[in-house]
Amino acid sequence: MENPDQNNKNKPGKDTSSSSQKDGLETSINPRYRRQKRYSPDIEEYVEGISSGNRTMLSQAITLIENSNPDHRESGQKILEECMGATGNSLRIGITGVPGVGKSTFIESFGTHILEEGHRLAVLAVDPSSSRSKGSILGDKTRMQTLANHPDTFIRPSPASGALGGVAHTTRESMLLCEAAGFDIILIETIGVGQSETAVHSMVDFFLLLMLAGAGDELQGIKRGIMEMADLIAINKSDQENIHAAKKARIEYENALSILARDSPARKPSVLTCSATEGTGISEIWNKIKRSAEQSKESSRFSARRSEQASWWMHETLNRQLKDRFYNHPEVRNKIKDFERKVKRGEVSPFRAAEELLKII
Amino acid sequence: MENPDQNNKNKPGKDTSSSSQKDGLETSINPRYRRQKRYSPDIEEYVEGISSGNRTMLSQAITLIENSNPDHRESGQKILEECMGATGNSLRIGITGVPGVGKSTFIESFGTHILEEGHRLAVLAVDPSSSRSKGSILGDKTRMQTLANHPDTFIRPSPASGALGGVAHTTRESMLLCEAAGFDIILIETIGVGQSETAVHSMVDFFLLLMLAGAGDELQGIKRGIMEMADLIAINKSDQENIHAAKKARIEYENALSILARDSPARKPSVLTCSATEGTGISEIWNKIKRSAEQSKESSRFSARRSEQASWWMHETLNRQLKDRFYNHPEVRNKIKDFERKVKRGEVSPFRAAEELLKII
Repeated sequence: MENPDQNNKNKPGKDTSSSSQKDGLETSINPRYRRQKRYSPDIEEYVEGISSGNRTMLSQAITLIENSNPDHRESGQKILEECMGATGNSLRIGITGVPGVGKSTFIESFGTHILEEGHRLAVLAVDPSSSRSKGSILGDKTRMQTLANHPDTFIRPSPASGALGGVAHTTRESMLLCEAAGFDIILIETIGVGQSETAVHSMVDFFLLLMLAGAGDELQGIKRGIMEMADLIAINKSDQENIHAAKKARIEYENALSILARDSPARKPSVLTCSATEGTGISEIWNKIKRSAEQSKESSRFSARRSEQASWWMHETLNRQLKDRFYNHPEVRNKIKDFERKVKRGEVSPFRAAEELLKII
Repeated sequence: MENPDQNNKNKPGKDTSSSSQKDGLETSINPRYRRQKRYSPDIEEYVEGISSGNRTMLSQAITLIENSNPDHRESGQKILEECMGATGNSLRIGITGVPGVGKSTFIESFGTHILEEGHRLAVLAVDPSSSRSKGSILGDKTRMQTLANHPDTFIRPSPASGALGGVAHTTRESMLLCEAAGFDIILIETIGVGQSETAVHSMVDFFLLLMLAGAGDELQGIKRGIMEMADLIAINKSDQENIHAAKKARIEYENALSILARDSPARKPSVLTCSATEGTGISEIWNKIKRSAEQSKESSRFSARRSEQASWWMHETLNRQLKDRFYNHPEVRNKIKDFERKVKRGEVSPFRAAEELLKII
């Protein structure tokens, strides 16, 4: 709408394809060349494909959004703009927990349970660390095989690299495309040790934190700020000889959360136990989430939170871009290290240094 | 140093004074006119006065820094630049807690104890809410009369208004001037319910949180983010029939803090009890702070934290200024509400809206 002159017939990546397809003749051609000749759908075809729930089209559109090539990204943006009217009709759930807590097994079990109720499920991951994502659960679809092979599921690992804000940014856009493709439950996974949780918390309706009993807080590595975001804490691996410890941990967490003040007592998170491998406690967690979503929809908190989140993302993007532009200015880059050194040594006050740097732009 | 052509003889507020003093003749003159003729020291006189510990000069220099008149602020900045070499030689302590926790009585008792050891004490306040500051403890010196009348103490209430960043910003500069004036213990008070705590935490060496036993967390209104910053939690009003409840609260808080994960186990805050009115527990708190400062000085964490803080303030100032400039741009102000409305309604994606707004500058 803000681009009335937008041409929906624009070809994304039009440099890669112009001739017609001659698949039968391509067997002996250099693979790179063959790839370049691959057919590229136009914006309208993408939008139609996504609307009809075509997972391949959805996947390709997300690739455009994640692309480092500005032309491809622009095409991705146009597809998203066309899809905006069909977004918003899902329940967005964030899931976090450190490696070892059993996230992949949990998502497999939890997702299967959700699919049994007839939902269509999309699983996205935000992992700002490229080295971690190589071994991450979602990078390795073989670990969520039931889900990966289910026709009503779409699984998408995080991009292998990129700035934190950038990754979360494209994840939010991917989420919107998934909604346009008719996925009505979206799980967004983070690894629970970084700063990506704030970004994810700002795009979901419900935030689930997975913990272990008796692992020691340092081992679990969960920052308290993350606990503060949680709508529900689930103590996983509550099975066999672990059951007693999990129940004890549940009570301890409940007490701790009661003692420590909350912004609002109404938002005090529940604590439940579950075993993803045995499938126990999973339906209780799902029921809790559903009930919470129903209640917040009745009180209109649901839509209010979404509006606030959209506004947050606009300002977040503005602030990030303003900083990027400033810090990437050649003269700023040139001088900032020197000022920083002087400030750290106490030779110049931080405010005077900032003033001098701002004079550059 | 970054102003080699700086003229130390510049007159701050030179528009208000040029003729010589004729005090004897001024008794019948209009008070406003008499005020304009008041003698204004120059930068060098300010610096000399501050260096010699003159509290009136210190107070006037802080007024220049807080002033809304750019010329006065510039004079304040020049004084600060000249004083930078004499700053840093204090222990900076942040004290927070909601109204009713007994902050003024605590600071009176704690400050008196510190003075008995031969220190010179400055007490500054950050209170971003102008309505609150009218009734704030530091706005009302009569409530800290022992300190207010002590020759080795300097008490400075917060400015009555101003942006949050702005108030904290001038508080940090005031703190540096106090150090240059030889105050070796600086207490910085906040009211414990707003966002000013992050700013204060970023200017102190030690952060003390005052709490009450059994007041209920909602009543206390302390945000969990503030607890996370605390180096020490002191449960005040541990006297008479309250002693038992305070001891119980101490154990509860200790347990809660142990259960909830910390960024670093070494930074787990201690919990102590005290009674500011009876003077019990005060020396234990002071000893704890001194020991903590000694330990962090030995491990060089002390200076490392200060360097990081100075750098934080430089970037914080840069980011705040970049935002201020953008959001105050006439065309941005004109269009942003409209974009925000569309984004909240889901008509435009937050990223597209940000992109359009950024095109303005």
